[in-house]
Amino acid sequence: MDRPENQPLPGPGASAVGASCPLPIQRYPQILMAHGGGGTLTQELLDRVFLPAFGNPALDAAHDGARLDVAGRTIAFSTDSYVVRPLFFPGGDIGRLAIFGTANDLAMCGARPRWLSAGFILEEGLPVETLVRVVDSMRQAAAAARVELVTGDTKVVDKGKGDGLYVNTAGIGVVEHEARIAPSAVRPGDVVLLSGDLGRHGMAILSVREGLAFEPPIESDCAPLWEPVEALLAAGIRPHCLRDLTRGGLTSALNEIAQTSGMQIDVEEAQVPIIEEVRGACEILGLDPFYVANEGRFVAFVDPADAVRALEILRGHDVSAGATSIGRVEAGTAGLVTLRSRIGARRVLDRLSGEQLPRIC
Amino acid sequence: MDRPENQPLPGPGASAVGASCPLPIQRYPQILMAHGGGGTLTQELLDRVFLPAFGNPALDAAHDGARLDVAGRTIAFSTDSYVVRPLFFPGGDIGRLAIFGTANDLAMCGARPRWLSAGFILEEGLPVETLVRVVDSMRQAAAAARVELVTGDTKVVDKGKGDGLYVNTAGIGVVEHEARIAPSAVRPGDVVLLSGDLGRHGMAILSVREGLAFEPPIESDCAPLWEPVEALLAAGIRPHCLRDLTRGGLTSALNEIAQTSGMQIDVEEAQVPIIEEVRGACEILGLDPFYVANEGRFVAFVDPADAVRALEILRGHDVSAGATSIGRVEAGTAGLVTLRSRIGARRVLDRLSGEQLPRIC
Repeated sequence: MDRPENQPLPGPGASAVGASCPLPIQRYPQILMAHGGGGTLTQELLDRVFLPAFGNPALDAAHDGARLDVAGRTIAFSTDSYVVRPLFFPGGDIGRLAIFGTANDLAMCGARPRWLSAGFILEEGLPVETLVRVVDSMRQAAAAARVELVTGDTKVVDKGKGDGLYVNTAGIGVVEHEARIAPSAVRPGDVVLLSGDLGRHGMAILSVREGLAFEPPIESDCAPLWEPVEALLAAGIRPHCLRDLTRGGLTSALNEIAQTSGMQIDVEEAQVPIIEEVRGACEILGLDPFYVANEGRFVAFVDPADAVRALEILRGHDVSAGATSIGRVEAGTAGLVTLRSRIGARRVLDRLSGEQLPRIC
Repeated sequence: MDRPENQPLPGPGASAVGASCPLPIQRYPQILMAHGGGGTLTQELLDRVFLPAFGNPALDAAHDGARLDVAGRTIAFSTDSYVVRPLFFPGGDIGRLAIFGTANDLAMCGARPRWLSAGFILEEGLPVETLVRVVDSMRQAAAAARVELVTGDTKVVDKGKGDGLYVNTAGIGVVEHEARIAPSAVRPGDVVLLSGDLGRHGMAILSVREGLAFEPPIESDCAPLWEPVEALLAAGIRPHCLRDLTRGGLTSALNEIAQTSGMQIDVEEAQVPIIEEVRGACEILGLDPFYVANEGRFVAFVDPADAVRALEILRGHDVSAGATSIGRVEAGTAGLVTLRSRIGARRVLDRLSGEQLPRIC
């Protein structure tokens, strides 16, 4: 703790972290925007810095949240910080994201979202009225997601050391069933269901950030996801894995699951819904909607015997009314995700190093 | 959500928050550093913005964390963001603070700290080696506090929109006894125990921030507090209230408890330990150690019949070896905190509007 910052890096064995962290500090000695993008550089930070320091079964599960045992009852615990720019955008704002995002991470653990904390980092000079608007939006979002905000904290940083406001939410959910829902539970033959069309959140942010006026305007898909998950569970369907498609979009989510499960995932492009407005905007801007962030979409990996019924159930809920079956899990090559195009060519869907659009959530 | 930011404030009834928030937006239309200082302005934000939006029994309890019921077992849930400047200081760093601070908030609820989340907000350009040092410090602190870091998140913001790194931790603790430990449980006659001397954390931060060399150097008191609390509980002592003395120091903690409990608290100055180095540094700099932040000190409100034994137990643990009995609760004037000086004069210990030293934690 007493080594000045400008001295050489610790050699192997200098500390528990140094010992298990031979790379890539030399390659990227400073934090880049891409380290926060949910792609390979975020994964490198996780693999090389965080997991060696904190590795434990809950963290190693590479899930959206930790599953913990409280006197025989399983709870889920998850956190996210929100740094989206701008604070308000079509279809949502940082407050809505902060409530739905963390509630959704719990839902993806198969847990009923119950309680949230909120930690605000305010920049000196922020109009109090902006804070009031964000807090009011969080109130409405919490009611919609049926979660209670039960504890919080506020810090203020000097002008020029923040960007209006950042907010962290952590959440606790309660698991009410026996299903093991995790990347490691994915099996060959599993069908991959997608809850709706891709790319709205990212394009909504980009439109306001860049002053682009799409007609009709593209709104964020930002929404709470527990309802369709609850319906699947209530129908006796036990998804092997659930994952919401935030930073890095569908591609990052599938790559993470393919890697953790040691499976190959094959996706049919023709089955992946993308609305015309998003497709057009992506084409103009040179973005790939398979990598664009969503805030109200998820994939469910289900047993082939459950696939048809699961799809029907998802389509019965507004938030997942556009659900489709987009692909399949194969033993194949561990960690590989492929996309078969409309004309039948198959290509690898690789991870990006970062997110195409920084500070998307 | 579609009202541009520069339009007039909503009138009464425009929203649930607007309706219950007639003040003090006009008085302070923008966020000041003092809103984050733990004093009256922080309290105003809580009373006027957060509580009207999120008010529920857990939040209204004005405690360091929420107490929640999971299938008949009580858990505590708490969060804090850490924005301390500089990141490293004598006796600690932002990582140690982030682990101990949140673990201590759980301990103050009478809960055994078990699991933490960590959400990092990194500024583009941060040396990865700095992050590695902070994470390694968190690893050591988690081991010392016997908590597991089980879930996390990393975001990156543009250069000039952060200050190296901010970290939020949220934590879950498990309550293993029946005692109700809360400001509202404080009763007339309760004895106020203080776990040790005041002011080290604030003065350690200030010394490095201002380039002052105290001899011997003042180190932060930053430490985990569950061990002495557990010992009190194990001995059958049921403290009525516990509170760690962070932002705003002893005075803010006592004022909050006096206000929530509707009691008066009288403190004897001669009983409050302050080491010579801290006293001298405070005198030179014009600071009052009763308001300076600590990160390893707490007050315990106990029944007079338990006071002597509780003090003995506290003194049996390193972190609270310097414990003293500093005062007493009276029915008196609700919300009043008084200090009787060494020469017998009694004065009001009022809250500051903010913290004397911004970004202290």
